[in-house]
Amino acid sequence: MKAKHVHVPEMMRAVRQRAAGGELLVESVAVPHPGPGEVLVKMEAAPINPSDLALIQGNYLARDYPFIPGLEGSGEVIFSGGGLIAGLRVEKRVACTPNPEGNGTWAEYMKTSAMRTVPLPPGVGFDEGAMMLVNPMTAMAFFQIALKGGHKAMVNNAAASALGKMLIRLSNRYKIPLINIVRKQEQVPELKSEGAGYVLNSSDASFENDLQKLSGDLGATLFLDAVTGKQTSILLKAAPRGSTLLAYARLSGDPIKVDPGILIKEEKRIEGFQLGNWLHTQGILYKLRFINRVKKQLSVELTTQISRTLYLEEVEKAIRTYKENMSAGKIILHPDKY
Amino acid sequence: MKAKHVHVPEMMRAVRQRAAGGELLVESVAVPHPGPGEVLVKMEAAPINPSDLALIQGNYLARDYPFIPGLEGSGEVIFSGGGLIAGLRVEKRVACTPNPEGNGTWAEYMKTSAMRTVPLPPGVGFDEGAMMLVNPMTAMAFFQIALKGGHKAMVNNAAASALGKMLIRLSNRYKIPLINIVRKQEQVPELKSEGAGYVLNSSDASFENDLQKLSGDLGATLFLDAVTGKQTSILLKAAPRGSTLLAYARLSGDPIKVDPGILIKEEKRIEGFQLGNWLHTQGILYKLRFINRVKKQLSVELTTQISRTLYLEEVEKAIRTYKENMSAGKIILHPDKY
Repeated sequence: MKAKHVHVPEMMRAVRQRAAGGELLVESVAVPHPGPGEVLVKMEAAPINPSDLALIQGNYLARDYPFIPGLEGSGEVIFSGGGLIAGLRVEKRVACTPNPEGNGTWAEYMKTSAMRTVPLPPGVGFDEGAMMLVNPMTAMAFFQIALKGGHKAMVNNAAASALGKMLIRLSNRYKIPLINIVRKQEQVPELKSEGAGYVLNSSDASFENDLQKLSGDLGATLFLDAVTGKQTSILLKAAPRGSTLLAYARLSGDPIKVDPGILIKEEKRIEGFQLGNWLHTQGILYKLRFINRVKKQLSVELTTQISRTLYLEEVEKAIRTYKENMSAGKIILHPDKY
Repeated sequence: MKAKHVHVPEMMRAVRQRAAGGELLVESVAVPHPGPGEVLVKMEAAPINPSDLALIQGNYLARDYPFIPGLEGSGEVIFSGGGLIAGLRVEKRVACTPNPEGNGTWAEYMKTSAMRTVPLPPGVGFDEGAMMLVNPMTAMAFFQIALKGGHKAMVNNAAASALGKMLIRLSNRYKIPLINIVRKQEQVPELKSEGAGYVLNSSDASFENDLQKLSGDLGATLFLDAVTGKQTSILLKAAPRGSTLLAYARLSGDPIKVDPGILIKEEKRIEGFQLGNWLHTQGILYKLRFINRVKKQLSVELTTQISRTLYLEEVEKAIRTYKENMSAGKIILHPDKY
């Protein structure tokens, strides 16, 4: 089923990568055909997230090359490959994520499962809607994990990121104290002005002692670790007995090195967290309720600051700019003609 | 309450250590006084376990120095500090473990909580009874974790150890396939003759591929890691998606080094396991049923081969001998006069 008055071309512009870590080129490729249960989205906007950086480094999810990056975005569904939900999505403005191992959002069109599209709430534009899934759902997932696991408080590093700022707002909403870890002194007052109750600077000489004392006092037993590498061991040493560390990104690029004695003596654990994997292990009803809750809070706690928008052809520049200052706000790619 | 006709002396011989990793000396120290809910055990036998090695290296549990090592043993309760259970234990032959952070079993007498003593089943001697707690309960705990977690099969390294051999027998009893990892070729036929279904030699060039294929085929998603260090990363890479690795000892002495991408991409996790911690998190009814089950299987699947018995004064020699060939059988310390 096709949206009215819409012409689906045969070819499209898309960012492609030929090997892990390789160059990103805008190429002309065939517009994909949605199969049963799938839709074709005419993309309008797609952000660059830390998970995209890991993906193009080859460190996140399995992909066959060449492939189109981009783990989330927004657009309009213009074609259904058949099936009830796919049919209902036609002509709808949606947030979307690619199929597992499928091509991504940094293109003029993306084919994906209808289940991987969420209609945009009225009043939510394409730019904001493009960031509706990965960060908001990740932030919400962390609080669901904290609530289910009976964690009294949490710790997050890379706290000045878009995700970090959502966590600060959710921490105030759910009344679960959050210890925010930043690397630069100027980020301390910045996060406090965003509502953060506790901010520690990992460059301070007293950081490890401060973290140990504060996490002990607050009962912070859930550690969200986007940095990994050396920081994982520091976090685990400071963590109270019985703590869980969720490794969810690898911004440092270094391996985790940890004394097994710390894990064995004090019942600590390290778990990998990836949103898609986590959602996959939840029941369908829980998933629907979860997505509804995210949608409701989207314009309250789950907002994201946008730094600038760029064309697909500027993708390498966009990534450089994003890496230079990840806490400045999100960079959005627009697939319009350059 | 005191056992009849028993004289409790004021001083006793005990192995003591003054600092982590320090020398083990037999010294004359005061016989401890049991408080309410505690008993005094006249020790008859105490084994050397890998956990004892970690403890005297300072890598296992918190201790104040000087302290008396020894994490399990057997003897007769000769004195109660008061309380119902403690009173019932007087004149009973028991297996026992020290209080958390308390002095251990490598001594003529040990004070411990009555809850940390288990009456020996009739027909179980002091030597066998001295090894009734740590290894049998650890082995049984691993199978309970496998059953609860829905793991179809398991992997264990250091498989030629006393614990490894118990796991082989329990694997046959519970029909949960076990992949046994050894380091030497001669251990392969040895473990097969003990009933092992799958034995891999980590020195083989094809080891990593073989482990990946076999664990994938069997659905082995619970990895028991007594070696840690470099082996942890090899195990995690080979492990099927969603696997859990339990680090329960650190025989290699090296830190764990692992690529966070492996954990994040494939939902893998590393957890520290320590028997006392694990038991502590189980309910009291479960604990009693668990101990009863261990007692029943003690002379069937949970037997241990004894290599030799030595005096307290020979403790350093005993540890050297044990380290030289951990798979030869257990070394038991006897606190009789030298």
